[in-house]
Order: sequence, then structure tokens, then C-alpha cells
Amino acid sequence: MTTVDVPVALLGYGTVGAAVTRLLEEAGDDIERATGHRLRVVRALVRDPALERPYPPGDGVLTTDFGQIVRDPAVALVAEVMGGVDPTAQYVLELLRAGKPIVSANKQLVARRGAELFRTASEAGVQLRFEASVCAAIPVIKVLREALVVNHVHHVLGIVNGTTNFVLTRMEAGAGYADAVAEAQSLGYAEADPSEDVSGADAAAKMAILATIAFGSRVDLSDVVYEGIEAVRPEHLRAAGDFDAVLRLVGSAALVDGAIDVRVQPSLVDRHHPLSAVEGAFNAVMLRGDAIREITLEGPGAGGLETASAVVADMVSVVGTTGTGFLQNDACWRTLPRLPPGEFQSPFYVNVEVDDRPGVLAHLAERLAAEGVSIARLTQRQLGDAATLDIVTHDARSASVEAALAAIAGLEEVHGRPAVMPMIARSSR
Amino acid sequence: MTTVDVPVALLGYGTVGAAVTRLLEEAGDDIERATGHRLRVVRALVRDPALERPYPPGDGVLTTDFGQIVRDPAVALVAEVMGGVDPTAQYVLELLRAGKPIVSANKQLVARRGAELFRTASEAGVQLRFEASVCAAIPVIKVLREALVVNHVHHVLGIVNGTTNFVLTRMEAGAGYADAVAEAQSLGYAEADPSEDVSGADAAAKMAILATIAFGSRVDLSDVVYEGIEAVRPEHLRAAGDFDAVLRLVGSAALVDGAIDVRVQPSLVDRHHPLSAVEGAFNAVMLRGDAIREITLEGPGAGGLETASAVVADMVSVVGTTGTGFLQNDACWRTLPRLPPGEFQSPFYVNVEVDDRPGVLAHLAERLAAEGVSIARLTQRQLGDAATLDIVTHDARSASVEAALAAIAGLEEVHGRPAVMPMIARSSR
Repeated sequence: MTTVDVPVALLGYGTVGAAVTRLLEEAGDDIERATGHRLRVVRALVRDPALERPYPPGDGVLTTDFGQIVRDPAVALVAEVMGGVDPTAQYVLELLRAGKPIVSANKQLVARRGAELFRTASEAGVQLRFEASVCAAIPVIKVLREALVVNHVHHVLGIVNGTTNFVLTRMEAGAGYADAVAEAQSLGYAEADPSEDVSGADAAAKMAILATIAFGSRVDLSDVVYEGIEAVRPEHLRAAGDFDAVLRLVGSAALVDGAIDVRVQPSLVDRHHPLSAVEGAFNAVMLRGDAIREITLEGPGAGGLETASAVVADMVSVVGTTGTGFLQNDACWRTLPRLPPGEFQSPFYVNVEVDDRPGVLAHLAERLAAEGVSIARLTQRQLGDAATLDIVTHDARSASVEAALAAIAGLEEVHGRPAVMPMIARSSR
Repeated sequence: MTTVDVPVALLGYGTVGAAVTRLLEEAGDDIERATGHRLRVVRALVRDPALERPYPPGDGVLTTDFGQIVRDPAVALVAEVMGGVDPTAQYVLELLRAGKPIVSANKQLVARRGAELFRTASEAGVQLRFEASVCAAIPVIKVLREALVVNHVHHVLGIVNGTTNFVLTRMEAGAGYADAVAEAQSLGYAEADPSEDVSGADAAAKMAILATIAFGSRVDLSDVVYEGIEAVRPEHLRAAGDFDAVLRLVGSAALVDGAIDVRVQPSLVDRHHPLSAVEGAFNAVMLRGDAIREITLEGPGAGGLETASAVVADMVSVVGTTGTGFLQNDACWRTLPRLPPGEFQSPFYVNVEVDDRPGVLAHLAERLAAEGVSIARLTQRQLGDAATLDIVTHDARSASVEAALAAIAGLEEVHGRPAVMPMIARSSR
């Protein structure tokens, strides 16, 4: 087999770009053995070529001139590892139009500009791959698109943000929220401004991408209902333990009677569910389909080398499938409606703080019953003069639970807003 | 995009063959959308065409004449779902030589005849894929070969036999061994003769395949040290709980200083290790590599539809990559030595039953110390006149532990043979 030389360009040369260069050099023989192709970085677009870099590229590779990449006919493949949406999207669109396949590690780009990017890629007949944009090295996109091609995946459940999972795991072990966030920052899991993570926005972008691929219908970020972990309190974690569950920030994308529901919420996960075992900064995604029942993938969801591993694997897949039409098309082929958020069905966990006096429980139960919400489990705990009630409902409509809780919040014996989270039952295994 | 018609033949038409036919029909549109190819079953080799079948193929598909498949130039792809090694291997070799790509669900075929099959496939320049041969629909082969192409995977840890995992899970909940096996049989998880599963032989074949792919060096079944679950006793499961671990039948394939060690043994798995959460008849495989740290895949490791899903995904991958050279080559490209089994290093769990009298513990500790094995944790429990000692050692050579236990077994105050199992510590997450 003769070796095909594949000159590669990078947009950006930060931590991920440097790691991509390193992996392409160190694993060059492995890639050639597997594919007959030798990939080498010939250009990298940067703002400041003079900046010192951890794994510096060869002489003449760094450039500030995008034209040197898009107009160089030798560049056969481009990896976008610069991040951001603007001007990144313009660069990527121009490269696709110029017939250059793209591999992107950019979750915001794919979640926000996916429709335009994929249409352009299809028109140009080139591939756009984006494994690294969701959960770094965990190959969930490849598995969804290639291994489960004959499965109608109807539910994707994921812990897709490592920072919040680390924080919740630490809180489970007794740490306070602020301390846990500070620890995540000191370990490099969380940014100085952690709001993208703790608000659920980061997880929402990833779930939008996963839902789009799984269901073949475009899901925008604005379609995702999300909530972060800022309001999680130690008593919720303790109640989770009482109910033989753990508290996790869970993304859920479900196909319900032909409508799509995508959400990210703190959730109670039964201890016998695979997602309950995901600890620390790890990510995991469970795919439920008709032929496979459920497959769960777990691993580190972030990191420069982990992300670069996925970028390079995508590059290898591009050179391995160019010319065969395999997966070059947009994953979207239909337009499905959104499930009205209130129609979401689940058992729910509810936490209410109340005055400790006779009749309170009856009042709460009445309000729930009035909305058709029935109680599966209940524990009551003393908190000085007050009591805290932890309730798990049977399967209920989200809107019914919200209506009942609005009524409950109005009772004079109830303190503050009740908390509510979906409860994820044990899996089919 | 014009549709390419791909006439497919099956070897065998049992549960898996019928499910393959069904998936190809039901998911024909999905496959065409993803690949531009339409796969349809045109021939299936069977012994008795008159037999009634669950999902009967179209008229004229069933044949008893292998020549109708190998000599039909229209047949573009063959799925081997008949099982067995003989005459299956001869059929597959002939088909490869005739230039027909093969997808196989046959673990014994790949584990026993892999070298010859892959050499023949390489010479003929056609693909041989075998995802379904290991853990059914869990796409571990695809992930190893495609997603982790730039990772040097140095350790594969797996629960790759669902029957034994089901039995151990039931025993953990209090069932006796015989009852748990009978329950597995009644649920269809175990064969009437469960010896292939409970002896560890089935898991050993799967670990041989995984080790071969992960390390690029042929691992034969005869290279795998294996032990089943017949000797697991309730007190071992209880001790596992005491040490915050669970007892599982674990396959391990490790690269140790350039030498390969592959083994299947009952093992204690720390509760914070992803494999400890695998319940019932499910399988899971953890891949450890340099760039990805560790990725774990979990799902149903058996079942007709699950296996067919992997077979069809392989077929789709073949049509998606034909002509590009991608992964058409044998995964083996080097010949690595075997680690002498006694050189295997791990912490170990040891269970010894002894007379309950003074000085016994000192005798045991002396024998361990004499071989350089040090004790990390120990619990002692009363059993009438006797006592049972549960010991976890620090990291030790397997040969040292065996030597110490041989000496311990010779002590007059020791009853029977001590039990010994590797202990798998929590993971890096």
C-alpha cells in the first residue's frame, strides 16, 4: 500500500492545537498502518505567531493569513480548534465552500450554526465532523451515527458537564457548594467564571447537538429547557441518599410520541442506574434504542489531550471515508415538533419546608391530588421548629407538578419555594 | 445521490440471521440516508430450507448450496451468522478469496482462526469485520480501531460474560450459586449446559480478541489464563462488601513493559470503579489509553437483536469504507511476548479458613512476609470453632502470593485451599 500524504491545516494553535500536532506526529505510524495516510500539519492560523507555545509547530507553519489556508490547494483537511462562533463560523463556511473537509471541536459553533454549516458541507460534498465538540474523547457521535445506524434511538440521557458533576460529587461527600466550586477551579475543571457550567448552559449546548444527531431533526439551543446546580442544597443530596439515589445534573433528550423534549436539570438518579456511578469530572451518555436497549459510554469529558484525541480520530475517519458518501450528509432529515415543556412526564422529587404542626401534610397532599399527582414515597425530618418534607411522586406531567407546587407555595405554613427535580428510575438491565 | 444496490448473503438463518434481515428491511431508509446504499438479503445458506423460521426471508433466498453464494458475482457482502468453527472457517476463507467482504458474529471463529482469516482478507484486499463477536451491540471494536486510533491502549478491563455477571449479582442479593444459575437458565441468559460461561472460557475468547485488537499482536485463546465462578462462595461476596468492593468475573488484558498479560478471574472491584456498577446480564469494557485516560462502554452483551444490530452496523461500515483502504488491514502488526503469568502484579484478596486459636494469624503473616507480600487490610470473623480471615494485600507478584498460599495451605491449622482473587482499585476519575 503506498502512503497518501495528507497536508493538514489548523485554525488555532492553543492547548488542543498543540496536542493535535503532537498526536499526529507521535501516532503517525499508527494512522498510516490503519489508513494508508500520513497526516501532517502544514499551516496553523493564529493571531500572534511570536507567542511561546507548549508544543511548537515546525518552521513556517504558523500564519496570521487565513488566505494561506483557504487558497492553498494542497491543504486537504482542516481542524478547527480556535473556539468561538465569530469569526470561526465565517472561516469554516469559506473552507467548506472551497471543498475542504472540516473537523471541529467547537460545541458552540455546532450548536448555534449547525444548520448553515451542514447545508454548506452537503452542497460542497465535503465532510464536517465534530466528535470533539461533545464530551471530548468519548466517541458518542461516532457511536450514534455509525454503530447505531439501524437503531431508532429514542432517549439520550447524559452527564455531559464534568465541572458540575465534580461539584455535586464533592457536595455528596460533605463539601459546601462554594468550596466545591473553588476546588473545581483550583483543579482546572472550572473556569474563573464558572457560570457557563453551573448554569447548565454548557450541558444544554451538548444536549442540543446530541438530540439533533439522535433524532435527525434540528434542535436549537433555544429549544433546550435548562437549569443549573446553583439552587441545589445539602438537604436535597441527603434526601437523594434516603431514596437510594444520587443527585446529578442530567441532560435528557427524548422522543415522545414523535415530539422532541430536551432538558438539563438537577435530577435524582436511582443507584442502580448506570449514570449514578459517574463520579468526579467524568461524563457519561446513555443511548436507548430499539435494538440495543441501552448503551452507556463513560469517560473524561474534557481536557486538551482528550479533545485532541477525538479531533485526530475524526481526521482519520475523514480520510478513511472520503469519496464513499458515508456520513457526508447532514444528520437532519426531518422536522419534528417540540413537546410542550409541561407535557414532560416523569416521577419527580419534591422538597418542601413547612411549619411543624398538625394538618400540614394533609394540605400538601390535597394540592398534589387536585392536580392528579400521587405520592410514591415520603419522608419527613425535623429542622428545629420546621420540618422538611421529601416526596417522590409517581409518574406525573411536569405541568401538573408545577401547578400543585404553585398552590403549595401559597400555603401559609410553607416556607419559600418548594424544590422539584425529575427522578430517574433504575434502568432495564 | 443515486442509490447503490448492495446484494447481501447470509451464512445461517437462525435468530441472528432473521434479525439481520428484519433490521435491513426496517432500517433500509436510514442506511440509505447515511450511506447512499441499499442493502438487501438475496441468499441465505441453511441446512434445511423447509424449517419454519421467525422472520422468513423472501422466496428463493434460502439455499443449501454454498456455491450459489461464493460463485454469484452479484453478492457484494456476506454476513456469517451460522456459528461454529468448522465448516464455517472454510466458507469464510473461500468467500474472502473470492473477493467478498465478510462480517462475522462468531467469537470462536475469530479467536481460534483469526490469523489465517485476516491474512486471507489482507491478501484479497477485502474487509473482515467482527464487532458482533464481542459483547453484541456494544461497539467496542469500532471504538478501539477507529475512535482510539491515536491512543496506545495499554489496559482493557471487561465484564464480558453476562451469564456470570447475572449469577454473581444474584448471589450478592443472597441467592445460592445453583439457584442463580437455574434462574439465568430460565431467563435465557444461560445455556442448558452453562459450562462455557461459568468456566470463564467464553470470556477468555472475547478477551483474546480484544487484546489482539488493542495491542496489535495476536493473542490466542491458549495465551489466556482463565478461571470461572464455580469456586466463588457466599463468604467471598460478603468479604467484598466489607472491603467496599463487589465480586465480578473480570477479564484483564494488559501491556506490561512490552509484554502481554491476558486473564479472566473472579476479582474484587472497588465500588468507585466503573465496572463495579455493572449489574445483571450486562457487559462493560473499560479501555485505558494514554490520551483518553479511560473510557468505559456498557450495555447488553448478548441477544439476537442486539447482535444483529452490530452485524448490520459492520455491514454499513464496510459499504461506507470500501475502496479507501481504511481498516482493511489486519490489526496485528507486531509480535509481543507474553508476560509469565506469575509476574502479574496486583493487590490480591485472600480468604483463608483457620482454626480459631492463638498464633494462627502470626503464622499466616509470616508466610506472606517470607514471600514479600504485605497486608493492607484484614478482617477476621468467627465461624463456630473456626475463623475465616479476609486479607487484602498491597501490590504483589502473583507468583509470590501463590507461593505464600501454598505454604499457608500446608499449615495444620488451615482448612482447605485458601482462595485468592485480584483486587481492582478505584479508577483515575
